[in-house]
Amino acid sequence: MSEKPTAGDRGDRHRRRGSKRGRSAETLPVQPPFGQPRLIYGPSQAVSEDQLEAIHDASLVVLSEIGLDFLHDEARQMLAAAGASVDGERVRFEPELVEDLISTAPSSFTLHARNPQRSLVIGGDHVAFSSVASAPNVADLTGGRRTGNMADFEGLTKLGQMLNAVHFWGGYPVEPIDVHASVRHLHALHSQLTMSDKAVHAYSLGAVRNLDVLEMARIARGVDDATLDAEPSVLSVINVSSPLRLDAPMLQGIIEYSSRNQCIVLTPFTLSGAMAPVTVAGAVVQQNAEALAGIAFTQAVRPGAPVVYGGFTSNVDMQSGAPAFGTPEYMKSAMLGGQLARRYGLPYRSSNVSASNAVDTQAGYESVFSLWGAILGGANMVFHGAGWMEGGLHASYEKMLIDADLLQMVAHWLTPLDVDADALGLDAIREVGPGGHFFGAAHTQSRYKTAFYKPMVSDWRNYESWEEAGSPDTATRAAKVVKDLIAAHEDPPMDDAIRAELDDFVARRVAEGGVATDF
Amino acid sequence: MSEKPTAGDRGDRHRRRGSKRGRSAETLPVQPPFGQPRLIYGPSQAVSEDQLEAIHDASLVVLSEIGLDFLHDEARQMLAAAGASVDGERVRFEPELVEDLISTAPSSFTLHARNPQRSLVIGGDHVAFSSVASAPNVADLTGGRRTGNMADFEGLTKLGQMLNAVHFWGGYPVEPIDVHASVRHLHALHSQLTMSDKAVHAYSLGAVRNLDVLEMARIARGVDDATLDAEPSVLSVINVSSPLRLDAPMLQGIIEYSSRNQCIVLTPFTLSGAMAPVTVAGAVVQQNAEALAGIAFTQAVRPGAPVVYGGFTSNVDMQSGAPAFGTPEYMKSAMLGGQLARRYGLPYRSSNVSASNAVDTQAGYESVFSLWGAILGGANMVFHGAGWMEGGLHASYEKMLIDADLLQMVAHWLTPLDVDADALGLDAIREVGPGGHFFGAAHTQSRYKTAFYKPMVSDWRNYESWEEAGSPDTATRAAKVVKDLIAAHEDPPMDDAIRAELDDFVARRVAEGGVATDF
Repeated sequence: MSEKPTAGDRGDRHRRRGSKRGRSAETLPVQPPFGQPRLIYGPSQAVSEDQLEAIHDASLVVLSEIGLDFLHDEARQMLAAAGASVDGERVRFEPELVEDLISTAPSSFTLHARNPQRSLVIGGDHVAFSSVASAPNVADLTGGRRTGNMADFEGLTKLGQMLNAVHFWGGYPVEPIDVHASVRHLHALHSQLTMSDKAVHAYSLGAVRNLDVLEMARIARGVDDATLDAEPSVLSVINVSSPLRLDAPMLQGIIEYSSRNQCIVLTPFTLSGAMAPVTVAGAVVQQNAEALAGIAFTQAVRPGAPVVYGGFTSNVDMQSGAPAFGTPEYMKSAMLGGQLARRYGLPYRSSNVSASNAVDTQAGYESVFSLWGAILGGANMVFHGAGWMEGGLHASYEKMLIDADLLQMVAHWLTPLDVDADALGLDAIREVGPGGHFFGAAHTQSRYKTAFYKPMVSDWRNYESWEEAGSPDTATRAAKVVKDLIAAHEDPPMDDAIRAELDDFVARRVAEGGVATDF
Repeated sequence: MSEKPTAGDRGDRHRRRGSKRGRSAETLPVQPPFGQPRLIYGPSQAVSEDQLEAIHDASLVVLSEIGLDFLHDEARQMLAAAGASVDGERVRFEPELVEDLISTAPSSFTLHARNPQRSLVIGGDHVAFSSVASAPNVADLTGGRRTGNMADFEGLTKLGQMLNAVHFWGGYPVEPIDVHASVRHLHALHSQLTMSDKAVHAYSLGAVRNLDVLEMARIARGVDDATLDAEPSVLSVINVSSPLRLDAPMLQGIIEYSSRNQCIVLTPFTLSGAMAPVTVAGAVVQQNAEALAGIAFTQAVRPGAPVVYGGFTSNVDMQSGAPAFGTPEYMKSAMLGGQLARRYGLPYRSSNVSASNAVDTQAGYESVFSLWGAILGGANMVFHGAGWMEGGLHASYEKMLIDADLLQMVAHWLTPLDVDADALGLDAIREVGPGGHFFGAAHTQSRYKTAFYKPMVSDWRNYESWEEAGSPDTATRAAKVVKDLIAAHEDPPMDDAIRAELDDFVARRVAEGGVATDF
């Protein structure tokens, strides 16, 4: 990740010229420029190679003996044609078929954003972080927790756009419930595409919506259908209804997005003890079977279509049934999922998660534990990177800012250590000698401005100064930065003709009533 | 780390029989038994082998060309006799001398506690966690922040004794300022040795105090001098006055403790940009030179004396000079220190640190980041494991409890994943099948009670239940558990004769006036 600001870096640009609303650059935090960290330390192994094969083999038993329910006629027909055994809704895969099908999935690809400087490499040793996605509720310190709505959708979109550590949208940061479901996808994606220039997510909510968002992504990029087909420009998370069931809208989504060469992030949600076995190994066996089945289907739809192996195994509190996140079991499964994805040569997706209801110590430690598991697992995509709270039930403004700080710290830690002759500092040690101090050393003076990562929210003041300032906790400090960043947001540049085409498309589709709904 | 409670496990015993004060066992959290985790995933490399050699070589240049000030006549004489070059207070070491001297330091040893079940292996792939140590202030939610005092010293000692994740004392959890310095070591160690049965720390505060604490440790263990000499029974942190200076009390401590075969934890405090170069590599070059000089001296005192390589390199905020902890730079230096310690075949010490003034999100993320660096660095001892706040300026009751939870989570993550046939869960997956749930499966029923780590303070309730309970944040929840644990504390068993001898020794030494002081 380069430490040099790029011309296209909005945060940096805003700092230089100040905000349109007259806020001085000084009120905005310094952020490293937009850029993808690399996994320079290499992934860790959760289990031995033999143990990994045992898990792989067990998953193949699940696929060949038990199989999955595919709740979509056309999907089953396509799989039967590919060689799977279809019995009613149940589809079973022989090991050779699974291995044949997944072998065509690419190990790495580019996910295109409407701003080419925001396009991302997915795979290899690259990492990309997303915003919180798909929360039904939203919270901030002043307004408390409330149902998702369009104003907060746009507030979080502006904030995520301003945060360089947020590389792409993993979905709607919060569900805008106050926009009718028939036209919600049109308004929401319009806001995301105009207020932000980062790569976008497309929900799999039926053929009409799927085609709408593909068209909007094409318009926003200013490309033709053939280019969209050659350059993945939306990603869609496909969740398995664990255990062992792929629902119709999900399969419809794979058919539409994979056939158009768009990115599928195939993610079973295998809560150990609830929707999966009570052991981490067993839950991952099931996760792996489900992921392989879905990934195999993407390749049956279109060999070579980009697809990411998603891991989302956590555990529940066995007394209450409540889901838990950022736990030791979560860390193990995050590492193990990555080990399996590498075995198959697939990009890997993990997440930054917390079950905490408040932006408190638990929110901090669960998030960093989950990042620890994700990075050791070799995750190429970290979903819910910024703002995910309460096991996904609410998005938090303050947590989004704090998480962006955490992501930047992880990214900074992932930069190679400078160990050239000057960095070794012998001249400085000679100059200062025993008992001195380095504040005034020439070595310090030439490097101090950029020597260390400068956090956006960590407070290192002494206790007395902090107390005089009102003893603000992390969330309180974050709230101020959130406000400043949102106030400084401007829509990123978009060609006038593209904007007009996008506006017209949405206006037309809204006028047509969007999508027929049951409610 | 075994998951089975041991007979000597106090927390467990209290749970079974309830507290003397009538609290029911249900008010106390379930804790895994006392036990040392193993570093099963192996350490990570912060730099390449070539880069590591460049850092090593630069440290040898510091030692041979610049040298360190050793502010102790006898120490300099011993080093001159060992072959070092002495010029006034300055001592320089040729590379061969350094390598010769450190070659006799053991790679692993046992640190003996007065309760043999609390003795620790220091080195190899073993990890041990300490309490917070040496804080001048103490804080809790109800009483706020206050100067260290004996009542809080004992409160934190009781809490640390009750927490199974606290394996040893890294020093006084808080300085009992209200006890006169002349007798403070006697009263403080007496409390620690009677209220706790875990391994203890001895400060290096001059010959009289050093000999007092050695004698008290001998009495508490019920052994003779020869046994104490054969079995390290106290540890002493020796800090370098960075840059490049070892003060008289520190060197006196090495002479007294190393000559008695006690454990030295040689720890430079190299804040990058202040007492060390502004680059992480440069600060670690200096840390390494300082550590090697001190470690070499321990071996000049007594070849084979146990010594631990301590890393404590962090950075300062270059705008304010404030120290920072748990930063990306801290993580890199924690990994790099471990890589160097392994190069020399020495046990490695790191820490769980935070600069936060409040038990808030920052306290959570800085602590987990520092644990991440420590574990990837392969740390054998994690000092300040529980309760360290404000860059070491205060100990926190609530943070001690929360940190113990974090340490237990790390320990649980470090247990090998069970991947035997039953753990793979195929029978459970067969039984449940597509679309079912696992709550009632036989596999779940036989395992659910012990399937997952049960945290002491994480709150996984749904938002509504949590809100009805008063929306308690992590610190508030921790405060309740702290109170229950302290109330349930009982002095661990001590032979009556030993107790009498210890009491008599302290009474006699106090009557003698303890140690002459200047104030």
